[in-house]
Amino acid sequence: MRRQFAIKIAYDGTRYGGWQIQPNAPTVQQVIADAVAKATSEQVHVQGSGRTDSGVHAVGQIGSFVLESWNPPADRLVPAINRFLPYDIVVRECREVMIPFDPIRQAIKKRYRYTIRNAKVPDPMGNRFHWWIPKALDLDKMRLAAGFLIGTHDFKSFETLGSPRKSSTRTVYELTIEAFPSMDGQDLWIEIEADGFLYNMVRNIVGALWTIGSDRFSPQWMQTFLQMRARDTSSHTAPPQGLCLVQVTYPDLVYLDR
Amino acid sequence: MRRQFAIKIAYDGTRYGGWQIQPNAPTVQQVIADAVAKATSEQVHVQGSGRTDSGVHAVGQIGSFVLESWNPPADRLVPAINRFLPYDIVVRECREVMIPFDPIRQAIKKRYRYTIRNAKVPDPMGNRFHWWIPKALDLDKMRLAAGFLIGTHDFKSFETLGSPRKSSTRTVYELTIEAFPSMDGQDLWIEIEADGFLYNMVRNIVGALWTIGSDRFSPQWMQTFLQMRARDTSSHTAPPQGLCLVQVTYPDLVYLDR
Repeated sequence: MRRQFAIKIAYDGTRYGGWQIQPNAPTVQQVIADAVAKATSEQVHVQGSGRTDSGVHAVGQIGSFVLESWNPPADRLVPAINRFLPYDIVVRECREVMIPFDPIRQAIKKRYRYTIRNAKVPDPMGNRFHWWIPKALDLDKMRLAAGFLIGTHDFKSFETLGSPRKSSTRTVYELTIEAFPSMDGQDLWIEIEADGFLYNMVRNIVGALWTIGSDRFSPQWMQTFLQMRARDTSSHTAPPQGLCLVQVTYPDLVYLDR
Repeated sequence: MRRQFAIKIAYDGTRYGGWQIQPNAPTVQQVIADAVAKATSEQVHVQGSGRTDSGVHAVGQIGSFVLESWNPPADRLVPAINRFLPYDIVVRECREVMIPFDPIRQAIKKRYRYTIRNAKVPDPMGNRFHWWIPKALDLDKMRLAAGFLIGTHDFKSFETLGSPRKSSTRTVYELTIEAFPSMDGQDLWIEIEADGFLYNMVRNIVGALWTIGSDRFSPQWMQTFLQMRARDTSSHTAPPQGLCLVQVTYPDLVYLDR
């Protein structure tokens, strides 16, 4: 019987050319499709909830595929697929979904986390997972600036040129900056939840927050920048390795086991 | 003027054949000695507070060396040395010490942390820094068992054969097991502070705690095992990647800047 599944995936993106299948680089999408094929003896296309760039990580990416003749419960696919995955990709969960399930269009919201290591010396153990900024950042100013971005706005100023979406209006539900003590400084978690994201939107927002936290611009500049509705090519884009796709939310009714 | 320095070092031990210089493998000691030589134009021997094995990490290893003609303040050595270190080794701090300073003999106590990822699925991002145990562990039993090890005892049962110390009596000041929520499970931090450690002592204690936490032996077995005062070759040694040297404590009077 034809069944469709949604898997929740975590990966360290360091070794991959991003999520999406492309020539000349191993991709997360391809490695997972190969593992599903080995586990089930069926060739599948794994559709993700969206792309992640090279070096970007995930703890809650969603992938979906159709199997023609898998009879066991959905959760048996977790160990079956993990057996054929390398150490840096893991399936956390598998649920059966209602056919046809479209993990891009049916997503209600997505949550990303960007990690900054704000400390005097670099961290020899976490350098693949954060952006190291030695100079102290002013969190109060960053939080003030972040406030201007919450709500429904045209985020064109935060969309990297090259692959424009039809509409650049998005709704940011949450934008929080948390600090945790870490070796010789602090770790900052910048978390953004929105109904969708433009190309490089999180990294461009973090780049703008950095210019404010390091006192190059005032918090109010964020509002001016947002209202420009055009990408300023001199603006800063935070590096990819600090970014992690944390969660993708779907309506409960897509799941057959709800 | 001849001066001696103590540096606090953090490293990811994954790529190294341990701390101590040896043929056929890059070692942390050698890489640091080379960096100091490049920074100061002086050939030095870097004496560590003790060895760490291949794959073991540190956030607070202490290394010491003598310079014949370094005139700036000690803390200037931090950026000077870090400039020549690879991404997985970093000098966090540098202080001048009273000649002659012996980082092995003058150490009062050392603290290690062992990290266990106790979760259903492996962590694609942290696999170099913990021991993954999928089966749920009984923390209450582990903590009960840990209690038997606190204090002054002959720890011969926890010394891996092959490089015996003269005396196997040590004093464990603290042995705590903390749990933190992590992806699909929890992270356990087993921290041990003692006046010194036998070869593989922390990894052998963690191996014993694991046999108790996974219900193969009762907590009271730890006491019996300790009292055997002999290493049972069938006992378990936890893998190296979960281990991290956290802190080495010296009497305040060794530091000239105290």
